[in-house]
Amino acid sequence: MSAREKSFWGWGWADKFPSHEARKSFGGQLKGMLGIDPQGPFDPPTLEAVASVIPESRVAPPSSLSFVTDDPEARVRHTYGRAFRDIVRGFAGDFDAAPDLVALPESEDDVRRTLEWASDARVVVVPYGGGTSVVAGVEARAPDGFAGVLSLDLARLDRVLEVEPTSLTARIQAGATGPLLESQLAAHGLTLRCFPQSFEHSTLGGWLATRAGGHFATVYTHVDDLTASIRALTPRGPWESWRLPGSGAGPSPDRFLLGSEGILGVITEAWMRVRPRPTFRATASVHFGEWSDAVAAARALAQSGLYPTNCRLLDRREAALNFVTGDGSHVLLVGFESADHPLQPWMARALELCADHGGRAPKGPLYAEAGEKSGDAGSAGAWKAAFVEAPYLMNVLVSLGVLVDTFETAVPWDRFDALHADVVTSVRAAMREVAGGGFLSCRFTHVYPDGPAPYFTWIAPARRGAEVTQWDAIKTAAGEALGRHGATITHHHAVGRTHRPWYDRQRPEPFAAALAAMKRELDPRGLLNPGVLIDPR
Amino acid sequence: MSAREKSFWGWGWADKFPSHEARKSFGGQLKGMLGIDPQGPFDPPTLEAVASVIPESRVAPPSSLSFVTDDPEARVRHTYGRAFRDIVRGFAGDFDAAPDLVALPESEDDVRRTLEWASDARVVVVPYGGGTSVVAGVEARAPDGFAGVLSLDLARLDRVLEVEPTSLTARIQAGATGPLLESQLAAHGLTLRCFPQSFEHSTLGGWLATRAGGHFATVYTHVDDLTASIRALTPRGPWESWRLPGSGAGPSPDRFLLGSEGILGVITEAWMRVRPRPTFRATASVHFGEWSDAVAAARALAQSGLYPTNCRLLDRREAALNFVTGDGSHVLLVGFESADHPLQPWMARALELCADHGGRAPKGPLYAEAGEKSGDAGSAGAWKAAFVEAPYLMNVLVSLGVLVDTFETAVPWDRFDALHADVVTSVRAAMREVAGGGFLSCRFTHVYPDGPAPYFTWIAPARRGAEVTQWDAIKTAAGEALGRHGATITHHHAVGRTHRPWYDRQRPEPFAAALAAMKRELDPRGLLNPGVLIDPR
Repeated sequence: MSAREKSFWGWGWADKFPSHEARKSFGGQLKGMLGIDPQGPFDPPTLEAVASVIPESRVAPPSSLSFVTDDPEARVRHTYGRAFRDIVRGFAGDFDAAPDLVALPESEDDVRRTLEWASDARVVVVPYGGGTSVVAGVEARAPDGFAGVLSLDLARLDRVLEVEPTSLTARIQAGATGPLLESQLAAHGLTLRCFPQSFEHSTLGGWLATRAGGHFATVYTHVDDLTASIRALTPRGPWESWRLPGSGAGPSPDRFLLGSEGILGVITEAWMRVRPRPTFRATASVHFGEWSDAVAAARALAQSGLYPTNCRLLDRREAALNFVTGDGSHVLLVGFESADHPLQPWMARALELCADHGGRAPKGPLYAEAGEKSGDAGSAGAWKAAFVEAPYLMNVLVSLGVLVDTFETAVPWDRFDALHADVVTSVRAAMREVAGGGFLSCRFTHVYPDGPAPYFTWIAPARRGAEVTQWDAIKTAAGEALGRHGATITHHHAVGRTHRPWYDRQRPEPFAAALAAMKRELDPRGLLNPGVLIDPR
Repeated sequence: MSAREKSFWGWGWADKFPSHEARKSFGGQLKGMLGIDPQGPFDPPTLEAVASVIPESRVAPPSSLSFVTDDPEARVRHTYGRAFRDIVRGFAGDFDAAPDLVALPESEDDVRRTLEWASDARVVVVPYGGGTSVVAGVEARAPDGFAGVLSLDLARLDRVLEVEPTSLTARIQAGATGPLLESQLAAHGLTLRCFPQSFEHSTLGGWLATRAGGHFATVYTHVDDLTASIRALTPRGPWESWRLPGSGAGPSPDRFLLGSEGILGVITEAWMRVRPRPTFRATASVHFGEWSDAVAAARALAQSGLYPTNCRLLDRREAALNFVTGDGSHVLLVGFESADHPLQPWMARALELCADHGGRAPKGPLYAEAGEKSGDAGSAGAWKAAFVEAPYLMNVLVSLGVLVDTFETAVPWDRFDALHADVVTSVRAAMREVAGGGFLSCRFTHVYPDGPAPYFTWIAPARRGAEVTQWDAIKTAAGEALGRHGATITHHHAVGRTHRPWYDRQRPEPFAAALAAMKRELDPRGLLNPGVLIDPR
């Protein structure tokens, strides 16, 4: 449809990478904003240059599958996800890990034929959606005994196939990106409202395979909760659950595929729970002087039964970084939305709970009703704009020789204070150790009655060429701190290969054995995304 | 604690079975109420009589496990669940299927030792909570190669072990019944609010293993949604997930155990999400002249985002049978509850939605606030009383030679009308065919944005001695009708052995293979509850 090109080495659209001069100017502001001296700016390589030096494909594309290619540029584009490590390596022109083949199936039958061919040819298959993994989820090496690696890109399976307005469900192909599926649903006045930060480029299939976190701060926090049924192709045949609003017939088949990260089968489509576009909105930005008060207010809201759509707590660093406020406050962004009813009573009670903990809403709540401009003004609007653009910042920072990453978790409320203190101490110490210092901020992305989902951002100066080593040290400090407090290694960024050391400790051992047994049963040759979640055979 | 005895053949407390005279008098009213001529009343056998004629135990209790017995009375009590077929067979004194041994472990270590011994002795182990299965979930036969069957009764593991008030979670042993765990939580001002109809006798472990449906009509519909972590003993060791408010680290381990019905391991305890006891309540009984209008109102409420606690639609037969109203109306019981805020705005909008579909609330909404008597008056109160007592009715009807059962499902809204029509036609035809006629009613127990969970009750005259054959025919008609419309074979009654024919068609084939592979991995000798969910090896 569009000729707009994605960056082959960094996040998002290529045309959004600022010019050398703009980056230089931005670098000049970094010292003041974050206390970090930039380098460079350096410039990325060209696609032609890197494509000309990647290793030869070890496998010839089968003549029976016209949609499979060994084109070097396609292989470069399918080498990495979009973690910091990926962008650093891409920026450095290192694409030695490129897959041997890229498949762009146009139908589910093409997917089936690809799996059959790959099984016979002993070629690893990596299901690929938007390629936005931040955990090396799409970066396979071929284990011993395999001829090579094929990246199975579902981009052409991008349609909303059916809409059921009475039951508010829609059958959507796995390769549809956020904007593509939302625009097709909008024609019916409907919306999925699953807005992970990667929304612009990530796909439904990727969301399902990685249990993406969505738009709603409460109740429907993961894409799991929006799923009525999933269809996947496994090497031993299609797996499709019945479209049901709920069931108690044995363990949920969908819950086996949700989070399976491509190791059990290739998700090809799903019936998703959609809803009318909201017409009523209520938003407020509540300011707190003390972090502990802000946390207590977020907990009160999470336990109130008000089920806010948005309950996003930004610490003062996060609030400043995202231009939400510069007054030194911690800010709780509270939002409600509905296609059914005005929201004044909900917001009024939410603000009472915040006030009980010392929260002030200096601009009061904002309300928008049917036909009015939606309530994206004010702090919440500033936040939203910053949220969508944030991943592009990583491209710029990499070009300025700056380390940047995020990590996120969920933890019971009773353990949060100790976790937060430990993360701050440990990650700051690691940044000092390997980078001489750095910036660390925290927000809550989702809240539950039993705990928050904290999300940390860190930025530190890089040593050119040592970025990955520095990053490893800081990531390890973070992962170890989470583990010490029983906080999950990820709330919605998946496990992939990067989180394996901590995931392996977190999951119950018999569960790991059961998962491996399932994989052997469904994928007896071990084709699918080896190394993700469990060891390759 | 209490010497109160449970019935060995029927539902619940033995002392609640009415006298011969009272049953005779009740039988006299049946013709008028349901158009069914009773027989008898017949009287049940004595425990002593049946215990003296059951087959000898094929396995001697091990001297190393003092809590294991072959006492005939204990074996009789652990023979069946509480389905209609179970009660009929129990009432007839048929306990040939009694397990060989009954274990009453006092600790998790006792459970572990039991599993080890059973593995060595080749004895089948049936995890047993309250014994209230309605799908033959606790009724094992020993497959070839096994020496016998042991019923593993978790009744002595009945404690709330820890309460975490900040995170609103509690660690509870699997053998705690509803009243036992609620009374322990009440000491902390907390409640789990999981109230399946079997609440009085069923246990937390049973709820988790069977994905019990609880109190909440929306959002927290299954016990799944109240679960923060589960601990189970598998034959290959303990399986315990981390207590987390949410996670995206791979497929959820808890979701593998939820609905596993005792085939993967013995659930010994769980961290559950509890909450303060509600202090605000709003209830209303909304009457409708037309069923289609009542259904449309229930759908509007389910899709409104108001998240009512109760949204229970009773058709006119159900409403009359439960003494909710006798005026021929279909009744939608709407309820909200909160420990945080008054509920007038919620109820006001709910009643508007009902009025849009012609619903009238003749007594208006009732509100109760902190310190007031809770809102159990009126139709909702009548319903609640009838709900808890309903299972006792089966005992009486069996003694009067009457067939009675329920079946339940969930289905998308767009398929509900056709499903309902087909069920009514098919089940009535089956009742006519095998019993000359009968009564059929429908209610919704839970509602989702994408569909309702309909629950059907049927009552028909029995032919003495042919009850199970008659029941089979009617059950089959119901199961086939559900399957024709893509409705799940169960929303919250589990699969057990009874639902296998339909469950086997419903689940994806690769999922069934994966589940069997998991079982082989975790329970390599196939000890645990063989025949439930999947075939014994």
